[in-house]
Amino acid sequence: MSEIAQWLKQQQKLLDRELSKRLPRANARPATIHQAMRYSVFAGGKRIRPILCLAAAEACGGDPKLALAPACALEVLHTYSLVHDDLPCMDDDDLRRGRPTSHKVYGEGIAVLTGDALLTEAFIMLAKTPETKRYGVKHYLEELGQASSSLKLIGGQVMDLEGEGKDLSKAQLIRIHEAKTAALLESALRLGAMTANATPKKLEALTEFGSHLGLAFQVIDDILDVTQTTDQLGKTAGKDEAVAKSTYPAIMGLEASKREAHRLTDKAHAALSVFGEQAHRLEQIGHYMLDRDY
Amino acid sequence: MSEIAQWLKQQQKLLDRELSKRLPRANARPATIHQAMRYSVFAGGKRIRPILCLAAAEACGGDPKLALAPACALEVLHTYSLVHDDLPCMDDDDLRRGRPTSHKVYGEGIAVLTGDALLTEAFIMLAKTPETKRYGVKHYLEELGQASSSLKLIGGQVMDLEGEGKDLSKAQLIRIHEAKTAALLESALRLGAMTANATPKKLEALTEFGSHLGLAFQVIDDILDVTQTTDQLGKTAGKDEAVAKSTYPAIMGLEASKREAHRLTDKAHAALSVFGEQAHRLEQIGHYMLDRDY
Repeated sequence: MSEIAQWLKQQQKLLDRELSKRLPRANARPATIHQAMRYSVFAGGKRIRPILCLAAAEACGGDPKLALAPACALEVLHTYSLVHDDLPCMDDDDLRRGRPTSHKVYGEGIAVLTGDALLTEAFIMLAKTPETKRYGVKHYLEELGQASSSLKLIGGQVMDLEGEGKDLSKAQLIRIHEAKTAALLESALRLGAMTANATPKKLEALTEFGSHLGLAFQVIDDILDVTQTTDQLGKTAGKDEAVAKSTYPAIMGLEASKREAHRLTDKAHAALSVFGEQAHRLEQIGHYMLDRDY
Repeated sequence: MSEIAQWLKQQQKLLDRELSKRLPRANARPATIHQAMRYSVFAGGKRIRPILCLAAAEACGGDPKLALAPACALEVLHTYSLVHDDLPCMDDDDLRRGRPTSHKVYGEGIAVLTGDALLTEAFIMLAKTPETKRYGVKHYLEELGQASSSLKLIGGQVMDLEGEGKDLSKAQLIRIHEAKTAALLESALRLGAMTANATPKKLEALTEFGSHLGLAFQVIDDILDVTQTTDQLGKTAGKDEAVAKSTYPAIMGLEASKREAHRLTDKAHAALSVFGEQAHRLEQIGHYMLDRDY
């Protein structure tokens, strides 16, 4: 196993322990919802958002341990968005990370409430973030709140729902991915940096990195949906085409999409130049996220 | 119009203005969700939670204006819970406050996202609460987060869902109402008091008031579901019996339920004795909420 793969595995283990400690106990009453919350949080996610948060803290000269509260909050918030996006009234997905989705196991009512509870828990977790000279819980809350609001994360899902079956332009597609994917990655990086008391200039550079990283990641996701099988993906392959969803390959073709992914990847890494050696881990994570087999 | 009815109307107007200022604009993109958010927030609610918040600030010697941020957050959070509770996979209600529910107007997918967006917005609004010597945004966040978590508000809805068609004991029913209704009323009072830098002892007294008030309110709600018409209620009457829901009248009979409502009402008012004259408004609101025609 490569050094970075090993490091990522360590971080995932650390985060799983922290998530388990910070979530309500599985036997808390009423038991159903607490089991359902853990079912979705511990479904084998790659923990990309919390890992970016920890690495951003490190890149800004901070102690990643101080970023564990927002890191866990980010993962729990991301999980809520998956649980709700999978619902029959939304993307209607039966499989997620190779396992039945929440509403298939617990029913739709409990799945809606599980998402609600995870979103609420994310904000509760965030309150435990240590304050620095520049940033307090007020700033952390506004940061995560805005990234996940109707103007960003939720707005992206709305545009995605409304775009199904329509021919979207490249600009519209970028707007959806910026809102639905990039905004939360940017926020993960910024929150980590804030726990290290980073300067506004560093936050800016990380925002740029996150923006390009998020778009590149999404272009690659669109490519993989075309080129890989359900087994390889752990979710239903060919889904985008089946529901006539606008994707990069659909709009600009497969080869141009691959070139676009490379261009965005380069821009992401260029944004890290201000950090020099300190951004080593962030660079590695970027390569790991984007060097998928497409 | 009585003095208290006039004062409540004034507060409702003030809160409507504040809510409108603090919510994302109706024409923010994507437009659908921002219209749907306002559709449900401005559906003619009585604004009981935010009014309790403002009155609690006053009872603790504070300026109610400083409690406007948590007051708005409480109402927006309450609205999210109604939008999700009305969904077909939950209580399946077509009418709320005399108007079609969110999913009837916007479809189920948008209704789920509208609830999500309102919940998120509630926490964003909360971040604007002025800090006091004793309390910061960290405390406000933990207060509202816990009251609306899987252990309280959401847990209450889970128990409610799971209890349908079953014979619940009085103790189980109380546990549901304490979680689903009383916890957020308690939190409304506590948040208002916190903006006035209230002592822990005062927070305790308000918690007791909120707990009895919430239970009394729910007993009366159960009674009205039996004794009033759909037109009088602005929501489907006789619904509880139709879905074989355990209610106070079902468990202990109508007359005993009325006596229970009176007993809880008295206990609520007794809890305010430590505030003396300063709790005048809170007492009036209590009478207003509980002196319904049952």
